Amino acid sequence: MEVAEVATKMAATSLGNPEGRVLRHMTKINKILEDDVANWAGRRVLVGGWVKTGREQGKGSFAFLEVNDGSCLANLQVICDAATHPLAELVPTGTSVLVEGELKPPPEGVKQRIELKVDRVLEVGPVGEKYPLPKTRLTLENLRDFMHLRARTNTISAVARIRDELAHATHAFFRQNGFRYIHTPILTTSDCEGAGEMFQATVLFSQAEKIAKELKENPPPSESDIEAAKLVVKEKGDIVAQLKSTKASKAEITGAVSELNRAKESVSRLEERYKLKPGIPTNPDGQFVFDSDFFKKPAFLTVSGQLQVETYACAIGSVYTFGPTFRAENSHTSRHLAEFWMVEPEMAFATLEDDMDYAEEYVKFMCQWLLDNSKGDMEFMVKNYDKTAIERLKLVASTPFARVSYTEAVEILMGVTEKKFENKVEWGIDLASEHERYLTEVIFKKPVIVYNYPKGIKAFYMRLNDDQKTVAAMDVLVPKVGELIGGSQREERIDILKQRILDQDLPLEIYEWYLDLRRYGSVKHSGFGLGFERMILFATGLDNIRDVIPFPRYPGRADL
Amino acid sequence: MEVAEVATKMAATSLGNPEGRVLRHMTKINKILEDDVANWAGRRVLVGGWVKTGREQGKGSFAFLEVNDGSCLANLQVICDAATHPLAELVPTGTSVLVEGELKPPPEGVKQRIELKVDRVLEVGPVGEKYPLPKTRLTLENLRDFMHLRARTNTISAVARIRDELAHATHAFFRQNGFRYIHTPILTTSDCEGAGEMFQATVLFSQAEKIAKELKENPPPSESDIEAAKLVVKEKGDIVAQLKSTKASKAEITGAVSELNRAKESVSRLEERYKLKPGIPTNPDGQFVFDSDFFKKPAFLTVSGQLQVETYACAIGSVYTFGPTFRAENSHTSRHLAEFWMVEPEMAFATLEDDMDYAEEYVKFMCQWLLDNSKGDMEFMVKNYDKTAIERLKLVASTPFARVSYTEAVEILMGVTEKKFENKVEWGIDLASEHERYLTEVIFKKPVIVYNYPKGIKAFYMRLNDDQKTVAAMDVLVPKVGELIGGSQREERIDILKQRILDQDLPLEIYEWYLDLRRYGSVKHSGFGLGFERMILFATGLDNIRDVIPFPRYPGRADL
Repeated sequence: MEVAEVATKMAATSLGNPEGRVLRHMTKINKILEDDVANWAGRRVLVGGWVKTGREQGKGSFAFLEVNDGSCLANLQVICDAATHPLAELVPTGTSVLVEGELKPPPEGVKQRIELKVDRVLEVGPVGEKYPLPKTRLTLENLRDFMHLRARTNTISAVARIRDELAHATHAFFRQNGFRYIHTPILTTSDCEGAGEMFQATVLFSQAEKIAKELKENPPPSESDIEAAKLVVKEKGDIVAQLKSTKASKAEITGAVSELNRAKESVSRLEERYKLKPGIPTNPDGQFVFDSDFFKKPAFLTVSGQLQVETYACAIGSVYTFGPTFRAENSHTSRHLAEFWMVEPEMAFATLEDDMDYAEEYVKFMCQWLLDNSKGDMEFMVKNYDKTAIERLKLVASTPFARVSYTEAVEILMGVTEKKFENKVEWGIDLASEHERYLTEVIFKKPVIVYNYPKGIKAFYMRLNDDQKTVAAMDVLVPKVGELIGGSQREERIDILKQRILDQDLPLEIYEWYLDLRRYGSVKHSGFGLGFERMILFATGLDNIRDVIPFPRYPGRADL
Repeated sequence: MEVAEVATKMAATSLGNPEGRVLRHMTKINKILEDDVANWAGRRVLVGGWVKTGREQGKGSFAFLEVNDGSCLANLQVICDAATHPLAELVPTGTSVLVEGELKPPPEGVKQRIELKVDRVLEVGPVGEKYPLPKTRLTLENLRDFMHLRARTNTISAVARIRDELAHATHAFFRQNGFRYIHTPILTTSDCEGAGEMFQATVLFSQAEKIAKELKENPPPSESDIEAAKLVVKEKGDIVAQLKSTKASKAEITGAVSELNRAKESVSRLEERYKLKPGIPTNPDGQFVFDSDFFKKPAFLTVSGQLQVETYACAIGSVYTFGPTFRAENSHTSRHLAEFWMVEPEMAFATLEDDMDYAEEYVKFMCQWLLDNSKGDMEFMVKNYDKTAIERLKLVASTPFARVSYTEAVEILMGVTEKKFENKVEWGIDLASEHERYLTEVIFKKPVIVYNYPKGIKAFYMRLNDDQKTVAAMDVLVPKVGELIGGSQREERIDILKQRILDQDLPLEIYEWYLDLRRYGSVKHSGFGLGFERMILFATGLDNIRDVIPFPRYPGRADL
């Protein structure tokens, strides 16, 4: 038997591949490394992953491989003899291996906690050509040109795990508080927020291309083609009339009528095709017409699920959304994406105070969750990106947030003498990022909730306060990113809501369904939105939002 | 003091509204009704919800209200005296109430388990006009015209809770099996699946509208405007030349040069505006040009996150997506939506057997989860829609799925004599829904996994089997809906993958990134996709997919 055959045969009886199964018999590296050595030493395991670094030792008699399987940041040290497998194939960075062997505690005084002595190499995925990611660290910006490979780096895989943990924390928090998860739509025909630029979703381009292709393969009829076909109809009609007047047999008449009908159908088919025009349909004024689009009217990608999820809050109480949202803004900052994920809870019977309480608890809950579940990845962030990242999580998890009214916040900022702001502070302005960060980072040195904003700078649906000047809005500001959450108590009084819509020059008609929620059993209700990527920036200390979402979309770029 | 003032004052000191909070002090009705009477009788609670039915009793001296807060299907019976609040305002269906009082066990022999004797009515949201939903049950189809109110019905709210439970079950299952949740993109520039019609996301319409508006307000320059401006440039140039030749002062020359530059800028501005054309940009052949679109090329809404999530599976092991996907197909069936949610796990080192194991366990896990967590809502489904719904969950949760190869399945179907299929059965066909349902409902009477399909009917990325005729694909078929899951082991061998791409007449270039996953440390891997709405249809026994998603999108309809 060839060596390869022996290996295949052995593999078939080893841990891997009984009855064709592999994954089920594998042990994830985090289970081994995050546990006591005593629980694992001496055990046989099947491990699969990718070689981070490999080196031949002992004059090529064996190799050390640092193997990572993505279950945690740490690698498992794997030792393989040259007799077990050709070492040159195993050591290149990026090689995938599926190996079996016995776990052994390392010799005393060595850094590794436990190592795997391999006696079977079941699968190898070699790095055939030069690995595109160099061993020296690429900048995160350069890594964005390797969107399909960047998850193989320590930073991006750690972000993926932290992102996953925060998603689970989100669901856990809302579930344990009695909220239901509602999937609000991505495609919407109501541009209700009036907020920002939207992407339009259409099939008109592909329709137009199909028509253009069709007309090219099969040119449209001319007017004279149609005239000729109409002439045939006339002739066939004359024949029918003649047969009837001469009292011809029923069979003869029926035959002639069906010929007439066929001629008529031919005319309408020609007329239909005559009307086919390549390009996007427009009306006589040159405006686009969407009658033939998928939804028979313009449809857009949602900028927020809030208004839609209110229909559920006003029916079943506490609900939340967690899904992608979109802004077609030509924004090239490190804080904006064209596609990003938002968490939007909405609660019936909740006041602004309830809203602030839940926002604060939710953020604290996520911070504590990461402290409990993402130790290794957070330590990596501290070591490589932000020394204070873990401290910040601890601070936020344990300290009550400051709460100040907008008016108080403006007074505080107007009294600042140590710093000159680029944007002048006065009552009525929308706080700029520099103001928000000064409040949370310098003045309070912890998260701050600013509430009761001037109505002029906030959305129509926010509840008007008794002072008639402010609305029951609130923003949660955190160190490092500034605004993390925006929320409000919603206007539940129909007359005031109508007036607010009109005051902002919005058309009442498109909000009739939204007004219905106030017409029939209206309730006080509140909600907020958290930008999920901003939370990850806050947690990790990374600087650019493009590095905390698996596939970032921004002007000019939507790789993969 | 007026009665209203007294009530306000009392309310301020009552359970609701201490320090402006309400929700925090409320008790959800499910906590009361799903517990022992003994734990709640005699306790004061604050409850908020909507009146399902209300009736005045005892010659108008008190009212019974059936109040629902969405936390469960069951209503809490609430009793309110006329002295506490005007009863006529409370009894209309749909009225919202926030009430406080004491829980009392009902008189013996009465159906209700426990009831709330209200002594404070803190908030009422009246039904000002006639409630649009009649008491008599509307059909689910009619309800779709009330997209903003239908969550207030028993059926749609029960579906919302079941959907929420299945979402949590999904995250729980994958988390406990070591999978990481990855957010794959909605917007994509790679039409990689080549599967079906896609929505295109664009800003070209709004751009064209802006240009049209701009040109209307500010007409473009004519050719003679540009000629005139060019003449000015020439004149200014001549002046500069003259000044230089006459050795004029530096100041004079500089002044003339800057005038010349201004004139040149004016020309380029005019030329720029001259080129502005309303409408969608096209090339000389009349084809659309997307250089000025948001991503500088055509972008589409994803039909599947699989290919993208493979980049994570080939980096960190076991991952899954759970998000919205899109098909712009003109499909009017009860099984298709233009926007629907999919769950797509992807596992490194997993074989087809592993894939089938996980698919089976995941479906079983969801069924058991509903049996454990959705008793009331599932009983409602049994009573109103599908007598066998709970039995089906129990069967699926407890019975091993049948597994047959495609070839065996075709042989079984060819042997069927009791039924005549509309679509002829022979090796090589894509099984039709009637075949799939016959296999699972009649032949096996339980879920069936069919595997190893002919390569000709499956996607290019599915792993070619040694027989060279079939691929390692698998579909999970379940009673009631037919295909619930489709999956496969992916082709990890680069040469075979390339050939399969070419065989299907797809261009290699756009798959270079996908091929890279096989070039550098390729691993066997597998995954599947579950249509989330189909799972809800399967669980509830409802017939139409439009009723199991909060805001259904299909041809011509995208309400709200």
